[in-house]
Amino acid sequence: MKFAEFHTGQIIEAGPIGVSEAEIIDFARQFDPQWFHTDVVRARASRWGGVIASGWHTCALAMRLAVDGPLAGSESFGSPGLAYLRWFNPVRAGNQLRLRLQVIETRRSKSQPTLGILRWRWQMFKQTGEEVLDLEATSLFDLTGAVER
Amino acid sequence: MKFAEFHTGQIIEAGPIGVSEAEIIDFARQFDPQWFHTDVVRARASRWGGVIASGWHTCALAMRLAVDGPLAGSESFGSPGLAYLRWFNPVRAGNQLRLRLQVIETRRSKSQPTLGILRWRWQMFKQTGEEVLDLEATSLFDLTGAVER
Repeated sequence: MKFAEFHTGQIIEAGPIGVSEAEIIDFARQFDPQWFHTDVVRARASRWGGVIASGWHTCALAMRLAVDGPLAGSESFGSPGLAYLRWFNPVRAGNQLRLRLQVIETRRSKSQPTLGILRWRWQMFKQTGEEVLDLEATSLFDLTGAVER
Repeated sequence: MKFAEFHTGQIIEAGPIGVSEAEIIDFARQFDPQWFHTDVVRARASRWGGVIASGWHTCALAMRLAVDGPLAGSESFGSPGLAYLRWFNPVRAGNQLRLRLQVIETRRSKSQPTLGILRWRWQMFKQTGEEVLDLEATSLFDLTGAVER
């Protein structure tokens, strides 16, 4: 999508994407080697009942859905950050995740009119409807060559 | 560290950790395949002057430093989320990243006294001092068997 195609209140859905136990463990071994992400036996006997994905892995899966979905073919060039982020429920092997994006605001920078600014809420859900992620991101778009007339 | 070893105002440093161009591209191909993370030639000719790490990769590197540092041997069992997150400057191949953690608050849940709650600020810097990440996280600790007497 192009920046001009986003509008306040718009809802965009993306996914699903799946994740396997091997992928959960592989990501965690690289970046978040806490036992509840990497140790199948200990995790099974714990409050979690099995390995759960690192929260950063959950975010990375959401990003993949956004990049393959609304950001595909866009003028996106980065993000300055998130207003907040919540991990409600853990992602587990076999989950099928869908992303629901809601546009909060879309505007051009006053001082830099070729800069498009998109604020949007990302919520990710399992196939059961259980929510696993909620965040508000700002995304930046380079509108050089697409200045409003 | 154990939950009891954290205290308000405490500053903990961790790192450094490095990242290579191959790692930046590999992460991005899996999770954030936008051209400025994956296309060396196009990224070099752009505002970024070369590929930059996905913001989620930056977070994952910070997590690795926290897990190998203060969270090692702790009662940590997860996180409900972040109050905010800012990516100030992009991480590039060859950067050496250090994490600075500042404890904002440490307390036990009133309703669930075996639950330890840590709020802390994470800031990550390059070897040049340039800041790449700032966030406030909440971490949860299982204090079963360690109840305050």
